[in-house]
Amino acid sequence: MTTNQPLQTLKGFRDFLPEEKRKRDFVAKKIKEIFEKYGFEPLETPTLEYASLLLGKYGKEADKLVYTFEDRGGREIALRYDQTVPSARVLAQYQGQLPKNFRRYQIQNVYRADKPQKGRFREFTQCDIDIFGSTSTVADAEILTCTYFALKNVGFSSVSLKINDRETLVSTLTPFATKEVPVFSITQTLDKLDKVSGDDVVAELVDKGLSHEAVQAALENCRQASISPRLTAIIDQAVALGVPRESLVFTPVLARGLDYYTGMIFEIIIQEYSAGSLGGGGRYDNLISQLSGLSMPAVGVGLGFDRIVEIASQLGLVTVKQSNANVLITFFSEELIRDSLEVAKRLREKGIAVEVYPALDKLGQQFKTANQKNIPFTLVIGEEEKAQGKIALKNMETGSQEILNLDEVVERLR
Amino acid sequence: MTTNQPLQTLKGFRDFLPEEKRKRDFVAKKIKEIFEKYGFEPLETPTLEYASLLLGKYGKEADKLVYTFEDRGGREIALRYDQTVPSARVLAQYQGQLPKNFRRYQIQNVYRADKPQKGRFREFTQCDIDIFGSTSTVADAEILTCTYFALKNVGFSSVSLKINDRETLVSTLTPFATKEVPVFSITQTLDKLDKVSGDDVVAELVDKGLSHEAVQAALENCRQASISPRLTAIIDQAVALGVPRESLVFTPVLARGLDYYTGMIFEIIIQEYSAGSLGGGGRYDNLISQLSGLSMPAVGVGLGFDRIVEIASQLGLVTVKQSNANVLITFFSEELIRDSLEVAKRLREKGIAVEVYPALDKLGQQFKTANQKNIPFTLVIGEEEKAQGKIALKNMETGSQEILNLDEVVERLR
Repeated sequence: MTTNQPLQTLKGFRDFLPEEKRKRDFVAKKIKEIFEKYGFEPLETPTLEYASLLLGKYGKEADKLVYTFEDRGGREIALRYDQTVPSARVLAQYQGQLPKNFRRYQIQNVYRADKPQKGRFREFTQCDIDIFGSTSTVADAEILTCTYFALKNVGFSSVSLKINDRETLVSTLTPFATKEVPVFSITQTLDKLDKVSGDDVVAELVDKGLSHEAVQAALENCRQASISPRLTAIIDQAVALGVPRESLVFTPVLARGLDYYTGMIFEIIIQEYSAGSLGGGGRYDNLISQLSGLSMPAVGVGLGFDRIVEIASQLGLVTVKQSNANVLITFFSEELIRDSLEVAKRLREKGIAVEVYPALDKLGQQFKTANQKNIPFTLVIGEEEKAQGKIALKNMETGSQEILNLDEVVERLR
Repeated sequence: MTTNQPLQTLKGFRDFLPEEKRKRDFVAKKIKEIFEKYGFEPLETPTLEYASLLLGKYGKEADKLVYTFEDRGGREIALRYDQTVPSARVLAQYQGQLPKNFRRYQIQNVYRADKPQKGRFREFTQCDIDIFGSTSTVADAEILTCTYFALKNVGFSSVSLKINDRETLVSTLTPFATKEVPVFSITQTLDKLDKVSGDDVVAELVDKGLSHEAVQAALENCRQASISPRLTAIIDQAVALGVPRESLVFTPVLARGLDYYTGMIFEIIIQEYSAGSLGGGGRYDNLISQLSGLSMPAVGVGLGFDRIVEIASQLGLVTVKQSNANVLITFFSEELIRDSLEVAKRLREKGIAVEVYPALDKLGQQFKTANQKNIPFTLVIGEEEKAQGKIALKNMETGSQEILNLDEVVERLR
């Protein structure tokens, strides 16, 4: 039965060993706390869907990245590519059951047959909140506010949201669009402004077929575009909801890559990381109808969970235990196994996380394992301790050992 | 872009709307709490693996249930079918990095192209703990104990573990095995004893080719088999670790379906549910080596997460909030939007979960939405309240309304 394949993950896929998995759980918990505090409700959809539901929804290039295959029943099926299309299905399928102004969060993995490269994976976690059914500026402001505080709750000290109005942007650019270079082609190039230089953006637009003069004028007009009354209202409301005004940065050249936005668009920037955004979103009032036939305005955000975990870890914001167990119970001899087990039981009854070393190895080996597992304390009951009704508690960091009774051990470990 | 497919999930796949998703999160949290208290470390592996890793590992029949396909790079890939084979890969791949006696938990979805039927799905959640690297009875006892307390922590009042020793069972049955009916064929039929009658088991074995007399004698010998010294030691140690002795039931005819067990086997039974077990496990000292070439004894359990959620819900053990938000902030008029938003901010600062109604609909509609979303309180700031610096807090269950200041509101909502 031995496998012929090298024992490894597929390219672009990852194992999360305990240390990394704990970090991810920590960040997810911090984000979820805020999502729930803002009244967002959890939703989960299946990993597999009918391929016809997903294909044709993300654009021609993206369709190539959807994992599709035929199942044994001859159905064309596909792996979840994002959380928006399945949500659109849910909204249409359970219309009668879902409340008005449904707000949901969804934290699940998505699959993209993309070229694996640094920081880009074929299976990664999306982390979305959306409010469905409302065109009100308050919904936009709630999304901005919840996003801001979710990032703050992870621990980032300076969170900025770059904001623009896609409607203003499109109407500013439309006079410069041509048959060869439609307005969404211009916005797609503009979207690269935070990754490449302004000159590169100009060059790309000229390359696409606009004149150098037109491009300069278009950019200048964008930069000078004034803030729309709607965006002003959204920002004022987000401020009333607690976001510092200086964290909401009107950015008239901000474009966002996806075509489907219809109003406010925004991106999350933190000072400590200059190489791009930690996520973004906006209003998309027509998409749900295009996807599912159900007329349903919407506004939301997608957080780049994997990048957030990576940067938060680098910045030392992720404070996780090095091991789940607080103490390793060791065994001195065959005769004293039961005594050690009973101490394990009592400590667990007191709520202390305990690992029991599962063998009668030499004590040195047992201590070594505690170090290897980063368990901060070990307990030994030897013959002397047993005779005195005591326990030896060893601090694995300092190496110091104390002979204590059970209550004292509980106190030390708490 | 409208889809031609009916807007629905694939057969055997499920959406979890907020109410159900909250229940699942509640049960998962209860189980995880105990896993971590027993020192098990979290592990996550990818949804997709090389097909060659999975195929040939579960038996011929099971191979047909593995979702496999060819990706765009021509690789044969497969969806996770269980958590044991990927764990075996992890153990082999990261040998140097993992500690001695690694104990891990894993809660992830698995995919099986099985015939969908009541209570059986094509995507479902597995929930495993295993201790790798130890042949000690203490490891077996730790698995039994952690299993018992995980189920107790979900809230089940009476949890029993039926236990047997596969080695004893096999040696008792071996004299009755024939070339046509090898011993594992007998154990596989015996495994049905908790689902079908004893007569049906006899009939199936006769049908397989054993004589009626041999079957009767085999069953009688099993029933009278005495408990092995090793099983006695495991049970004594589990009792020392806190499991009530009456919850550990030596069951000499217990067989378990999978062939790979090599020692202790067990199943989880609760009094309130007679139609089968809530999971089971045992010792499998050769499997990891067969899967990965790495010699590694192991003992573990798989909990039937979906069934546990279903039964715990039916028994009223799952106490989840009906909504994440504790209060819905409503809007009285355009002019008073900011006042409502500021109250939302202040309540959230005090740690209260708040949903802001995202529109200026009629108050009646806003109250109706609170009811629809099961949000227990609503807040209104009308002109009178504003003039007095007060807030109207309405209890949506009783319909009673109080005019309060902010501190009083905070107090009521806590």
